[in-house]
Amino acid sequence: MSGNSFGKALVLTTFGESHGKAVGGVLDGFPSNIEIDIDFIQSELNRRKPLSAIFSTSREEEDCVEILSGLFENKSTGAPIAFLVYNADQRPIDYEYLKEAYRPSHADFTYQQKYGHRDYRGGGRASARETLARVIGGAFSKILLKRNDITIQSWISQIGPFQMRNPACTSPPNPSPQGEGNIQHPASNFQDTASCILHPASVSLPAEVLDFLDQLKRDGDTAGGIISCSVTGVPAGLGEPVFDKLQADLAKAMLSINTVKGFEYGSGFGSASMKGSEHNDCFVSEKGKIKTLTNFSGGIQGGISNGEEIFFRVAFKPVSSLMKEQETVTTDGTPIRIPAKGRHDVCVVPRALPIVEAMAALVLADHLLRMSYNL
Amino acid sequence: MSGNSFGKALVLTTFGESHGKAVGGVLDGFPSNIEIDIDFIQSELNRRKPLSAIFSTSREEEDCVEILSGLFENKSTGAPIAFLVYNADQRPIDYEYLKEAYRPSHADFTYQQKYGHRDYRGGGRASARETLARVIGGAFSKILLKRNDITIQSWISQIGPFQMRNPACTSPPNPSPQGEGNIQHPASNFQDTASCILHPASVSLPAEVLDFLDQLKRDGDTAGGIISCSVTGVPAGLGEPVFDKLQADLAKAMLSINTVKGFEYGSGFGSASMKGSEHNDCFVSEKGKIKTLTNFSGGIQGGISNGEEIFFRVAFKPVSSLMKEQETVTTDGTPIRIPAKGRHDVCVVPRALPIVEAMAALVLADHLLRMSYNL
Amino acid sequence: MSGNSFGKALVLTTFGESHGKAVGGVLDGFPSNIEIDIDFIQSELNRRKPLSAIFSTSREEEDCVEILSGLFENKSTGAPIAFLVYNADQRPIDYEYLKEAYRPSHADFTYQQKYGHRDYRGGGRASARETLARVIGGAFSKILLKRNDITIQSWISQIGPFQMRNPACTSPPNPSPQGEGNIQHPASNFQDTASCILHPASVSLPAEVLDFLDQLKRDGDTAGGIISCSVTGVPAGLGEPVFDKLQADLAKAMLSINTVKGFEYGSGFGSASMKGSEHNDCFVSEKGKIKTLTNFSGGIQGGISNGEEIFFRVAFKPVSSLMKEQETVTTDGTPIRIPAKGRHDVCVVPRALPIVEAMAALVLADHLLRMSYNL
Amino acid sequence: MSGNSFGKALVLTTFGESHGKAVGGVLDGFPSNIEIDIDFIQSELNRRKPLSAIFSTSREEEDCVEILSGLFENKSTGAPIAFLVYNADQRPIDYEYLKEAYRPSHADFTYQQKYGHRDYRGGGRASARETLARVIGGAFSKILLKRNDITIQSWISQIGPFQMRNPACTSPPNPSPQGEGNIQHPASNFQDTASCILHPASVSLPAEVLDFLDQLKRDGDTAGGIISCSVTGVPAGLGEPVFDKLQADLAKAMLSINTVKGFEYGSGFGSASMKGSEHNDCFVSEKGKIKTLTNFSGGIQGGISNGEEIFFRVAFKPVSSLMKEQETVTTDGTPIRIPAKGRHDVCVVPRALPIVEAMAALVLADHLLRMSYNL
Repeated sequence: MSGNSFGKALVLTTFGESHGKAVGGVLDGFPSNIEIDIDFIQSELNRRKPLSAIFSTSREEEDCVEILSGLFENKSTGAPIAFLVYNADQRPIDYEYLKEAYRPSHADFTYQQKYGHRDYRGGGRASARETLARVIGGAFSKILLKRNDITIQSWISQIGPFQMRNPACTSPPNPSPQGEGNIQHPASNFQDTASCILHPASVSLPAEVLDFLDQLKRDGDTAGGIISCSVTGVPAGLGEPVFDKLQADLAKAMLSINTVKGFEYGSGFGSASMKGSEHNDCFVSEKGKIKTLTNFSGGIQGGISNGEEIFFRVAFKPVSSLMKEQETVTTDGTPIRIPAKGRHDVCVVPRALPIVEAMAALVLADHLLRMSYNL
Repeated sequence: MSGNSFGKALVLTTFGESHGKAVGGVLDGFPSNIEIDIDFIQSELNRRKPLSAIFSTSREEEDCVEILSGLFENKSTGAPIAFLVYNADQRPIDYEYLKEAYRPSHADFTYQQKYGHRDYRGGGRASARETLARVIGGAFSKILLKRNDITIQSWISQIGPFQMRNPACTSPPNPSPQGEGNIQHPASNFQDTASCILHPASVSLPAEVLDFLDQLKRDGDTAGGIISCSVTGVPAGLGEPVFDKLQADLAKAMLSINTVKGFEYGSGFGSASMKGSEHNDCFVSEKGKIKTLTNFSGGIQGGISNGEEIFFRVAFKPVSSLMKEQETVTTDGTPIRIPAKGRHDVCVVPRALPIVEAMAALVLADHLLRMSYNL
Repeated sequence: MSGNSFGKALVLTTFGESHGKAVGGVLDGFPSNIEIDIDFIQSELNRRKPLSAIFSTSREEEDCVEILSGLFENKSTGAPIAFLVYNADQRPIDYEYLKEAYRPSHADFTYQQKYGHRDYRGGGRASARETLARVIGGAFSKILLKRNDITIQSWISQIGPFQMRNPACTSPPNPSPQGEGNIQHPASNFQDTASCILHPASVSLPAEVLDFLDQLKRDGDTAGGIISCSVTGVPAGLGEPVFDKLQADLAKAMLSINTVKGFEYGSGFGSASMKGSEHNDCFVSEKGKIKTLTNFSGGIQGGISNGEEIFFRVAFKPVSSLMKEQETVTTDGTPIRIPAKGRHDVCVVPRALPIVEAMAALVLADHLLRMSYNL
Repeated sequence: MSGNSFGKALVLTTFGESHGKAVGGVLDGFPSNIEIDIDFIQSELNRRKPLSAIFSTSREEEDCVEILSGLFENKSTGAPIAFLVYNADQRPIDYEYLKEAYRPSHADFTYQQKYGHRDYRGGGRASARETLARVIGGAFSKILLKRNDITIQSWISQIGPFQMRNPACTSPPNPSPQGEGNIQHPASNFQDTASCILHPASVSLPAEVLDFLDQLKRDGDTAGGIISCSVTGVPAGLGEPVFDKLQADLAKAMLSINTVKGFEYGSGFGSASMKGSEHNDCFVSEKGKIKTLTNFSGGIQGGISNGEEIFFRVAFKPVSSLMKEQETVTTDGTPIRIPAKGRHDVCVVPRALPIVEAMAALVLADHLLRMSYNL
């Protein structure tokens, strides 16, 4: 009822506050007898770290995953896999001034209203550190998906007002007003785009984007963005037809991430402007396999995967923690100015890539296990 | 695991196929001792009926709700409320030709892949008739919400490529590229807009929209659209902070509706282009009550309602059932042309209004009960 | 949260009051493509009917199951299977005198305390008619189990103070003080015992038992009893090791039946008096198959089936509805005498056999599906 | 689906193997703003320790609870409470000889069948160390119950074949063949009995029991027993009427404890021999409060607490770990003798008292929260 668990067959429960002892989770329902590469788990965690001075001024945290249970001789036993990451860099003194103040667009006010008592240091459960547990749970899920030849790849398609295009992409214009021309693209283009964004040091971002981010940093301001995600290799049959449609569970997964404001899949919001005759994906038979000619359906029909690429997009607002003084009120309504303090991400979208992928992996692994139970 | 239930404290389970005996549901967790107005339940159901010749050529079905349990002397007893609507207008002969064919962008193919055996008449569980049970469950939820002064109001903000504006609305331009200028609007404007759309016969749709729909009907084609929804009167504290964020459950609820392709709340996709300093909602104290000056947060912060208006938008694709011949394949991959047959909605968006509201009502009533348990 | 659903992979939700329109249920998670013999479902339902004048003075109700959804061409589709039984024999006038009185050892008082509003006619949800839905859900489960060669057989091992022995049974004395010598018996003995009790007309109950029941009937009094149940053909691996141990789910299933006061499996309460060296079941290998020499474990070790016969016993109190005047109080505490009215079962244990089997079938089918998902 | 979580409103998830890094749990749904006495939590944990040389030859483990999250300034925040106990005394070498052998009446065989891969050191999840997490979760629950004046008290009523009587108890003979004359007793008698058993050093066990235990120790053998439990101060209204009856959830809770073989509440198995006219609990009004004259119902009617004392009994088999050589087979069916090794409890019943209470506390706290949501 308190919503700290996610999934039905594969259930991730997370715990921990940003300034408590540790954040962690329990992954229950993971099949037995599966070899686990701990280095891969840690490498996924490392993707959450601040990427470069372009995007962030944050501390370099050393987040090391510790597995407490569920593995024996490097293989899963079917028992719950508990893990944690200790919070090394605790500086509660940073937050004392926020004991009474409600930061704009943070969860301080709503937590106080709901719980009457809150850990005001760093946002408690609302901290992005909670997503550490999601990334670890997602990494285990990816191991399961990989054994079934399912691949998840996300990339940044917008930073602030700038839409990002993969120059290698030669496909026709995108029918979706928000889209990046990907609906009919081969997956390879996605991967090209993605790889350049995943390692921003190795690619030249357009000068205008660099200027934009640089100016924001100087202003103590922040930018939002859009992440796109593609899942390939999904067999037909994942998802349940009514409330647990695959897209419904993906939508919930994405909207459960801090700062996410929107979700669309396949043709998305752009579909509202299309005609049915344009939008319908025709079935054809190729080499004995039934597939669709186009993929406005985004790989899901009637809530169930159809074997085509699953494609969705997630909108992130600019983060609310600014390096500027802001006006707000205290718990008793008194106006107050809160100073520009603490660490600061100009744009969290790059660090959100592994989180989007982790949540997608949890949804797909859950439905993969649920499908195996159906058949 | 099969996903025919929705909610945690208030659980709706639905059953029934479009061409079976009945569709219905069981609503479990509804509090006892609450007076139920059956006429209101039926009136919500009536809102699902084909509205007018502008939008639809469908049969006029007489859908009457029958309550089987959970009420005694017109009050709830705390026992599960079971209800059903018999399927009166069964014409299975209509669908015989679809026994072997996979209709484009329907669930025929995915159901066959998942289940190996399917009720091919009218789509089975994928039929929009399943939403009858949602509307009934939502109507019960609205009774609960109304006792707590919570009001849900939806309206059409886009049909095909045409964005709809309420002429009475004099608010400043909308910061969201997809929006209708509503983010800072008083709720009364929403209701004006809504009322004109809810009763299309009584309002003059812009001539260009009428022409567009008329042309689609002659072409046997279909249009999508966007529905906006506002929830007012919500106290602070609804929603759970991590996976069951209020927006996450709303997103799942909306994406579980057939033909929905996207969800955004508050500033939505438009937030990606905004700066943090523009987007942050400042807290102020007015007459001893803490509120926000703007509402880009859409009434939800950290997953929990903050007492402001909750606002979200839902994108609908054009429906896949066309009144035109279409090419597809049979279950063994043989190309086939399926004829233009059956009933036909040019645009389902008007009929989706009560469904969007019902799903929102289920989410809010569920979290209202969960909040009462928290405190 | 309201507890009207049972199971995790295979979920039965029941609804309906004894004097409402209907009782019924929704069975969700039943696999697709399984042939359903409706006659078998109805035959299970018929086993709940009053057996003979020996045990009951009750009305002969004609309970006919009506399937509303989830089947197509006599096979399951994977969609939820909804069913109901209309309440034909409604005589609410019978119960008017109970509007204000709390019957001893009934749920009248607790329902009033919990809900503040109750359907006082015949006990509402506390009526044994609710178990109709369990028997139907159990019958579907039995179809699933039978396809996996799993058989459930229950029989009466005690009526009032009389322990029942199968005369064909030549096995050594029972180490359990409550038991019937069954712990090391071959399953065939169980079936002999069971068959004679299942069809009481065809067997001569011991004269002393007949006299006992006859006297109770004349006194307007009631008797309890014990039902034993054996499940054979269960493969090793059903059950989950911690909270959802197979015996834990069976215990919950049985204690959820009205009038059940106790549950034991394998050696049961008798095990408390045994030594570990007597109680341990030795493993041996027979024809390449590992099995146990004895079965004090009752077919379950560490919460998981081991392939041996699963055996458990369920204690039923004498039903609380007497054909004698009784003293009690009204809702405001005033003493009142309630008359001897209504229909009357001298001993419900024979009618409880299909209910015990149904609940066992639901538990085993649920875990069978959960196991298939584990592997 | 894997059954490592318990409860609906208050959910305990446990993790950890006996020879892994740690055992622990996550308690989700615990209300905010409740003061937590960590010393009390630790004192409950200490009750699990080997009591004295009379009952055990086990190591003296120092089990210290570490709370990772969910508390701030010694009060709960409403966030999940994660905790763990590190496994200090790991001697995996002890168990190497069990890599291939299936110990009689242990879970070795069933785990191997179910998972194909298991942690053979000390039983993995089947180890009694898993109950550490239950006791901690139960201790938190007791804090919640105490604020609502609900008290749980358990005591030993049988060791091996010896029934234990509190000499202070002058009540009339017990109508239940298994019982200890407690059904109509005032709660004070229960507590007397309990206190002497909880601190065995301070009481003279009957000489025949001491002799019996001493002989078992010399033989390397083990004894079972029965624990009784009383819950007082429970308001009317806890429990749900159909599947989640209070007694059903208690039964599941108890049968989920290792080595438990039976559960009965109120009149229990003894009720089978009683007549309805003897068994019915008459309602009377005393000082404006409606109560029952007798309590064969065990404080629960129709699945819902009626305000009287809740009373139940739990049967424990003798533990399977013997200090004698035993015959069994290896994973490939080869006969093998396993030596008398490891640590050894002659009778675990005294150490099970806090576990029985913890599971009862979890059930009652869960239903207390569920009731608060109902009303």
